[in-house]
Amino acid sequence: MELLITYDVDTTTADGRRRLRHVAKACEAYGIRVQKSVFEVVCRDADWVLMKQRLLDIIDPEQDSIRVYVLQRGTFVSAEHIGQSPPAPHDEPLIY
Amino acid sequence: MELLITYDVDTTTADGRRRLRHVAKACEAYGIRVQKSVFEVVCRDADWVLMKQRLLDIIDPEQDSIRVYVLQRGTFVSAEHIGQSPPAPHDEPLIY
Repeated sequence: MELLITYDVDTTTADGRRRLRHVAKACEAYGIRVQKSVFEVVCRDADWVLMKQRLLDIIDPEQDSIRVYVLQRGTFVSAEHIGQSPPAPHDEPLIY
Repeated sequence: MELLITYDVDTTTADGRRRLRHVAKACEAYGIRVQKSVFEVVCRDADWVLMKQRLLDIIDPEQDSIRVYVLQRGTFVSAEHIGQSPPAPHDEPLIY
């Protein structure tokens, strides 16, 4: 499955900044960062179950938000990038 | 068409903060903000042509980046939201 994960984590506190680092780390374990708080993940359903639990354990649901879009295969490759540092196109899983 | 628009605008300068406000305003004219720099847009192809030009006129391509995902109809409604302030689900155009 192709997932687009975007998140807003409150960074006004030290704990928020810690959560931000951990959310990014969790996403990096499964996908590719394409913008500061936007990750493209190609994974199996089971991986998403694990990843979601990990994210739930990290965030403060009162302060932070994560959005997950389940995309049709090929959406990443056809995404349009305007401006600096376009990531390399990919549509293969990073984890095997 | 359903578009997911995500952006990173450099906010370390006053000009960057101005660009950020203008990018957000351009996106608000066509869609719904679901996170700080994530917008969901339901529009016609012609609207996207106008919107894209407006965004191109605003950003500094050396500093900022915008990603645009063309999504299958219904992706917004099935998006998963974890944490605070979930936006109202929508899949109708805001502009007529």
